[in-house]
Amino acid sequence: MAEAYERLLAEIETMVADEVRPISAEHERTETYPLGLVRRVCEMGLPALVTGRPAVPHPTELFCMAIERLAEGWVALAESVHLQTLATCGVARHGTADQREQFLEDMQLGRTIAGNCLSEPDAGSDLSRIATVAELTGDTYRLNGVKTYVGHAGVAGLLNVYARTSGGGLGGITCFLVDADTPGVAVQPPEEKMGVRALPTAGVVLRDVEVPASRVVGRLNRGMIVARSFFVQGRLGIAACAVGLAQAALTHATAYARKRSQFDRPIIDFQGVSFLLADASVQIEAARQLLYRACREADTGGSQVEMLAAQAKVFATDTAMTVTTNAVQVLGARGYTGAEPVERWMREAKLFQIIEGTNQIQRAAIASRL
Amino acid sequence: MAEAYERLLAEIETMVADEVRPISAEHERTETYPLGLVRRVCEMGLPALVTGRPAVPHPTELFCMAIERLAEGWVALAESVHLQTLATCGVARHGTADQREQFLEDMQLGRTIAGNCLSEPDAGSDLSRIATVAELTGDTYRLNGVKTYVGHAGVAGLLNVYARTSGGGLGGITCFLVDADTPGVAVQPPEEKMGVRALPTAGVVLRDVEVPASRVVGRLNRGMIVARSFFVQGRLGIAACAVGLAQAALTHATAYARKRSQFDRPIIDFQGVSFLLADASVQIEAARQLLYRACREADTGGSQVEMLAAQAKVFATDTAMTVTTNAVQVLGARGYTGAEPVERWMREAKLFQIIEGTNQIQRAAIASRL
Amino acid sequence: MAEAYERLLAEIETMVADEVRPISAEHERTETYPLGLVRRVCEMGLPALVTGRPAVPHPTELFCMAIERLAEGWVALAESVHLQTLATCGVARHGTADQREQFLEDMQLGRTIAGNCLSEPDAGSDLSRIATVAELTGDTYRLNGVKTYVGHAGVAGLLNVYARTSGGGLGGITCFLVDADTPGVAVQPPEEKMGVRALPTAGVVLRDVEVPASRVVGRLNRGMIVARSFFVQGRLGIAACAVGLAQAALTHATAYARKRSQFDRPIIDFQGVSFLLADASVQIEAARQLLYRACREADTGGSQVEMLAAQAKVFATDTAMTVTTNAVQVLGARGYTGAEPVERWMREAKLFQIIEGTNQIQRAAIASRL
Amino acid sequence: MAEAYERLLAEIETMVADEVRPISAEHERTETYPLGLVRRVCEMGLPALVTGRPAVPHPTELFCMAIERLAEGWVALAESVHLQTLATCGVARHGTADQREQFLEDMQLGRTIAGNCLSEPDAGSDLSRIATVAELTGDTYRLNGVKTYVGHAGVAGLLNVYARTSGGGLGGITCFLVDADTPGVAVQPPEEKMGVRALPTAGVVLRDVEVPASRVVGRLNRGMIVARSFFVQGRLGIAACAVGLAQAALTHATAYARKRSQFDRPIIDFQGVSFLLADASVQIEAARQLLYRACREADTGGSQVEMLAAQAKVFATDTAMTVTTNAVQVLGARGYTGAEPVERWMREAKLFQIIEGTNQIQRAAIASRL
Repeated sequence: MAEAYERLLAEIETMVADEVRPISAEHERTETYPLGLVRRVCEMGLPALVTGRPAVPHPTELFCMAIERLAEGWVALAESVHLQTLATCGVARHGTADQREQFLEDMQLGRTIAGNCLSEPDAGSDLSRIATVAELTGDTYRLNGVKTYVGHAGVAGLLNVYARTSGGGLGGITCFLVDADTPGVAVQPPEEKMGVRALPTAGVVLRDVEVPASRVVGRLNRGMIVARSFFVQGRLGIAACAVGLAQAALTHATAYARKRSQFDRPIIDFQGVSFLLADASVQIEAARQLLYRACREADTGGSQVEMLAAQAKVFATDTAMTVTTNAVQVLGARGYTGAEPVERWMREAKLFQIIEGTNQIQRAAIASRL
Repeated sequence: MAEAYERLLAEIETMVADEVRPISAEHERTETYPLGLVRRVCEMGLPALVTGRPAVPHPTELFCMAIERLAEGWVALAESVHLQTLATCGVARHGTADQREQFLEDMQLGRTIAGNCLSEPDAGSDLSRIATVAELTGDTYRLNGVKTYVGHAGVAGLLNVYARTSGGGLGGITCFLVDADTPGVAVQPPEEKMGVRALPTAGVVLRDVEVPASRVVGRLNRGMIVARSFFVQGRLGIAACAVGLAQAALTHATAYARKRSQFDRPIIDFQGVSFLLADASVQIEAARQLLYRACREADTGGSQVEMLAAQAKVFATDTAMTVTTNAVQVLGARGYTGAEPVERWMREAKLFQIIEGTNQIQRAAIASRL
Repeated sequence: MAEAYERLLAEIETMVADEVRPISAEHERTETYPLGLVRRVCEMGLPALVTGRPAVPHPTELFCMAIERLAEGWVALAESVHLQTLATCGVARHGTADQREQFLEDMQLGRTIAGNCLSEPDAGSDLSRIATVAELTGDTYRLNGVKTYVGHAGVAGLLNVYARTSGGGLGGITCFLVDADTPGVAVQPPEEKMGVRALPTAGVVLRDVEVPASRVVGRLNRGMIVARSFFVQGRLGIAACAVGLAQAALTHATAYARKRSQFDRPIIDFQGVSFLLADASVQIEAARQLLYRACREADTGGSQVEMLAAQAKVFATDTAMTVTTNAVQVLGARGYTGAEPVERWMREAKLFQIIEGTNQIQRAAIASRL
Repeated sequence: MAEAYERLLAEIETMVADEVRPISAEHERTETYPLGLVRRVCEMGLPALVTGRPAVPHPTELFCMAIERLAEGWVALAESVHLQTLATCGVARHGTADQREQFLEDMQLGRTIAGNCLSEPDAGSDLSRIATVAELTGDTYRLNGVKTYVGHAGVAGLLNVYARTSGGGLGGITCFLVDADTPGVAVQPPEEKMGVRALPTAGVVLRDVEVPASRVVGRLNRGMIVARSFFVQGRLGIAACAVGLAQAALTHATAYARKRSQFDRPIIDFQGVSFLLADASVQIEAARQLLYRACREADTGGSQVEMLAAQAKVFATDTAMTVTTNAVQVLGARGYTGAEPVERWMREAKLFQIIEGTNQIQRAAIASRL
């Protein structure tokens, strides 16, 4: 691994140990967004690895290794950096020179937190159902509609809003870069999520929101090209979060099983416990290697990247769900309480099987490529 | 099924629909114990089915069918009635005539909420490690020690405390029936459990707690005989809770999959969704029939009851964990939030794999009987 | 259980121990059909339990308990009795008085071995694709077509042939009772099946086979009503075979794990082995109870019988596949060879996930009833 | 990948397509060892990659990629080359200059087929139980004992025999290189294995077999050091076989699901089928990447190689078992017969979960390193 890699990862590991782990439980309890930490990580160059012109040979792999380590410390932080990166992809890859000039650096460095507004009440997996409309009058679009499950809603200053500018289907959608404080943008109260509560997710209602035509990202009616440009990154980032979270759970459960004694020996001496841990280690390492393989395919522009990213997403997130559920089991009654982090990790793991395309949607995508 | 069966179950179903389901989410949110409902169910005769002399032919089966229906509505309520029944078993089966005269009816009818104090920091699965001591002076025992994960702690008026009255191992433990308001009994703040938060679970510290010798339940140093007398019931009751919870999740997810459309059809039309539901229905029905079989073995005094109860506990609780996790999946992002009950049910399901003997302890017990 | 039950089951257990187990491996090796044993079991009254007017209260449950015990000894024998029963259902339930007079007793008693000819090269799960035609001239039908995977082909004297008598779809098919030695009936060489090789399965080619109109079973064009009349029985019988086979594998693997020592103790002392066995016992008992529940629904004419039979078929057969695969694992290298029966049982188990409606077809059926 | 890599792999792919696949089924049926093909592959340099001084940067990874492709065509061939490589490791890594001079090239090139004799009736997973004795008289050892499950028995000219030269335990075992035609070496009839029957496996009885002291491989009483020198390679090679076999099954099942129609569409259009295939592809790719990672650790002399090799072995072989079992399912009744190769592949897959250390032994090894 190049030296630059190792430096970045070591820096993150130090930060996680010293600054992230100590505060994560309390921030989750109070649902407090860690703006300072997110900016710190962005300033280390994470979003820029994927949205800029990085000098390292495998920027996507490095990005995912970094996200993995962040998630090992605190999922909300890793997920927020991941979301920030996704929300930056549009401007970075499809933005006009003016848009890039005006917004890109602030987004990459986390000075402006950003979000993507894709889902709607009737458009979850099926984006062809997007009903938010953008009507042009003169040089200004007027947006009306309801967006759901918007990550960063409430903390974001910029929103990528996907709205219909032409007839039905996927072909008539356009991406707009909207200031979150534009009149008519109403962020709803945050969803009461099962986990990852320090990262706000909420509905966003748009009522006669006026957006200048200069804020169209990419081509008119071709918003899905913008969205698709970060779908692969979305899968990889979630897979990285899942691997990191599963690793945290395995490490914690193994340490507990070593020190907890019952029947006169540490419980790790019972294969009923140690085989759970062994299987977890096997699945995590397989998930990790599959993820890195997918990243290298992305970094070399390989044709299998969509397949591999979907495979990595399914496998890593299913692994995280199984491993965290079993980690609670290894810790027993204590693991079921807030005295230990494993119950929180189990709640967090469930998110990954759902977001950035449910694992059912991923399987359908994989099957179609077989 | 006898008419008496049907009447009781119908009564419970009505109560669940009209009074339980409407309040469960809010009670869980505010962590409010449903004392009135628990008493109502006890007055219907549930604890007495198992701890009295019921006239029906298969009282354990009827009890579990009733618990199943309660858990379909609200796990905390079902679990509380289950705990009340377990805590009544000692007096009912091993109590003196005086103890039965004084306490039994109040416990059966839920007028006095009761709890069992078994676990300790170093004695979870391995009860031979119980370190709470009871020292006799004259006619009075003085108890000192720390009990953990005591269900009903804080709402119980009576506690069955298992303490050491003789040398090490399982053979020197005695069961005491202790008034919860005896000086020296200090209930700790409730554990922040992942779920089932309306039912308080907490540590209980005993400092020089004086208990008259007349409060010994069963024989001196033979407390494990008292405890073992409700271990089978403990497994059956949790299995019943698990079947009911899994059924609730399946019913809810199926209804959602029927009405939620994506890609122009209800998502239940996709086998990727409907096969999850089909498999859930298969496992639930298998779990239910295994549970009923174990109950009938208990009711007829069969020799396989410990084996069958352990099998039912493992299978039903693993099923509940899988089914609730998949129910969240079927509901997608919405299922991950408090807008739907499935995320709560998934959190509740995890408890069942742990309590009344972890599923690893059950497997060891099963293997030893093969 | 009624005394008649116990007598029949005891008789079968004795026969299995004394006469079936000792010869099964050799018969499978030489692919020799056990005609004598099949007749003996038929004479005990098994097919008649399902196709006659049995005096016992739950004939289907008793039948499946008997099949379970037979399969514990030798799958091919159990499966043959099961097939004989299915092939008798048509005449028993839809035959004319003359047909019943002429054939029923000989079929019930196994004097005439019978088979069902349903599948065709293009009609496996989808019977609407049946292409075998039956053309009427005067009082005689002339049958032409190819049937595949006909159980008992080569040993059967009578074949229920489903052929098209009207336009496409499921509505134009008729069932014919055809003597196997009718000119034009050509049984192909037996399929080289992975297992259950003592029971021949083969294609049957029909070329200008003349069948008198008196041999139509049930109504013209309503052959699917005849076929559907034994679909539930088909699922139940296979589930019973699967439970018996899985039990045989568990019993054998447990005995081996008790006597085989490594690292100075019997390998059953390692939870890595004993938990496999414990899980097997749990699944088998759950499968068994689900099967019996489905049988009782059949015996009482309950409305849930199709659902329960499909659930029992899926669960029992998946259990048999898992348990036999793990039984080979417990026996290690020795289990992989013909020195032990477990490798044969694993090969046999696979059949059950496929026949009488693949487990995918069952899941689709279950999902449609949710 | 280096050009040398690609050339070798392309050569093997051509050979597999043109010469291996066409004959594998018939060779398995007649249990005919493919000596010519094994030699051809050895001459391509496979054993030498691992046992020689290869010029390529990652010889273990290249070896496993080649084995993977061979197994995709025919497991017995891949497994034989793998066994030949393992049997060559002793001389290559621990042999004297004379031994290397005399035997190494012939073994690497497959001119002399070789085998390892480790297991005994009481020494399977636990090699400390080896009871075969070697007694020294003058310059000659006299070997007596029984070896079991010796791969290549009957076709091998050279056998590495592990025998006891000192007191109990793992510390008193010595490795001898024995000519298979030495008087007193009696190869038993081949085991009737469930699969991989073209590769003979048999017991070897040693009765007063005289072996000159010059044939001791490695140090006296340190035979386990010789054996351990190929344990990692043993795991990697089996993992490679498993990945190749699973890939063959997935490719075959996918092609079948595309062309087989039921209910008016190819069955791959049903998610009940296509999700099985998608999950298979996910697991296979994860297994492959985990295997390659383990190989690179071996090639760079990394400290995690034993852990990674055990993880790869468990995961790849469990994957092969699941994928081949499901491949038969996708092909339905036809898949259960010799008309298709999938039933054979399922039988072959089971071997991998057992040999080179059962997956239970691997899990114990993994757990001990956590």
